Formats: sequence, structure tokens, C-alpha cells
Amino acid sequence: MDAQLDGLKYDANGLVPIVVQDVVNGEILMLAWANREALKKTVETGKVHTYSRSRGRLALKGESSGHFQLVREILTDCDKDAVIVKAEQIVAACHEGYRSCFYRKYEPGAPDWKIIAKPAFDPKTVYSK
Amino acid sequence: MDAQLDGLKYDANGLVPIVVQDVVNGEILMLAWANREALKKTVETGKVHTYSRSRGRLALKGESSGHFQLVREILTDCDKDAVIVKAEQIVAACHEGYRSCFYRKYEPGAPDWKIIAKPAFDPKTVYSK
Repeated sequence: MDAQLDGLKYDANGLVPIVVQDVVNGEILMLAWANREALKKTVETGKVHTYSRSRGRLALKGESSGHFQLVREILTDCDKDAVIVKAEQIVAACHEGYRSCFYRKYEPGAPDWKIIAKPAFDPKTVYSK
Repeated sequence: MDAQLDGLKYDANGLVPIVVQDVVNGEILMLAWANREALKKTVETGKVHTYSRSRGRLALKGESSGHFQLVREILTDCDKDAVIVKAEQIVAACHEGYRSCFYRKYEPGAPDWKIIAKPAFDPKTVYSK
């Protein structure tokens, strides 16, 4: 049991949004979802675990790429319905090769979001192993 | 119309999570929800608007406190299902008086989350006006 994790307000699907933030420079790396089990694993192993809605299962972040997120601090908000994990990011967070998943910027009047980051690795190389 | 806002992946309730981040120091101030209309208002007015799930309506952040969030940059992620707004925060983001809503820290083995911030204002004074 873990009273702090039990005290969170999970949604109807048993999930809370978790924001992973680079502990070094404050960059927001990704927004994912976690159930209580994923948070428990995150706490116990010191590596971010999420609940993958698309795959319908617990997932260790970086399990196929080796790009783990090493937990340094976990915060929650006034409503206890969202979580921040400050972490040390190995290589990069985004499966598309960017350091942060948030590599697209809103440009007033433009037809599409503008890519503002350079890739940190080549997904074809990393995920074909 | 706005092709960038139309291109986001809203959930079954027409919402996306938005993370508001202090443009000055990178602190994450809050996680809220927005529908397309709230994002459109955010873009048009330069002030963060959210969709309040508890009140079931569009809300201008700071409408009763005057603690507006002035938009500097809007980002989305690889899946286009989450948004970051980098903003200049007037006074504080949290209705409980803290600069950031994320003022509670996980403490291994503790019975409850630990409050790690000092209040920036007194909610009783601000919201009784």
C-alpha cells in the first residue's frame, strides 16, 4: 500500500496524466498517462512507467529504445489529479527521435504546426534492433 | 477556421490536456483542459482559456482573481493530443494561493504528500472581492 498514490484522483479509466520534465533544464519532455500500478512501478524502480492507452498495458518508458527516464522528484497538484515527474532523460523522450515530444509550435495563420527541434537520434536505427 | 487547432486530437469529450509553463523559469504552473473553443480564445486574446470540467464551461484563467496567464508560445506533441502553453504568469496560478498548482511532493514512506511551496497570496482576500 502507498497512501500517497492511493490519495490521487484517478479518472474513470483509473488514469492520471503525468508530465515528465527534464530535471536538468526544465524542458517538458512528454505527457503520458499512468494508472496506480504504473506509478507504483515508477516509485519502486526509479524509472518512469506509464499506462499505454493504445497498447492497453503497463509500459516501461524506454523499454525498446533504452531511453529510460530516471526519476528524481514526483509532484502532484492542488486537485491531486495530475502528476509531474522530474527525471534525467537518457538520449531522448520522443519515439520520433526528438529530445522532447513537444517539437511543434503554433504559428498564427500557418497551415500547420511548425517543427522547431532537430532530431536527437534516428528512430529507424534505434527501433529496428 | 484554424487548421492547426483543427489538427489536434481531441478526446471523446472534445478536450486536450494543456500544461501551462512559466516562460521565465520553466516551472510547470498547472495542468488544465481545453476544447477547441478555449484554444481559439487563447490564441485570439493572448490569455489562457480553459474548459472547466467541474463547471462545464469555458473559463478565462484569472477571470475572478486577475491572475491571468499571458501567452508567449504554444506547442503540441508528436501525437498532437497534448498542448503546452508557455506563459507569463500574473501573481500565481493556483487558486489555493501557490505560484504553481504542483506544490506537493512525493515522499517515500510518508503518509501524505509534502507541501514544498510557500503561498504567494491569500485566497481568502483575493476571492472574496
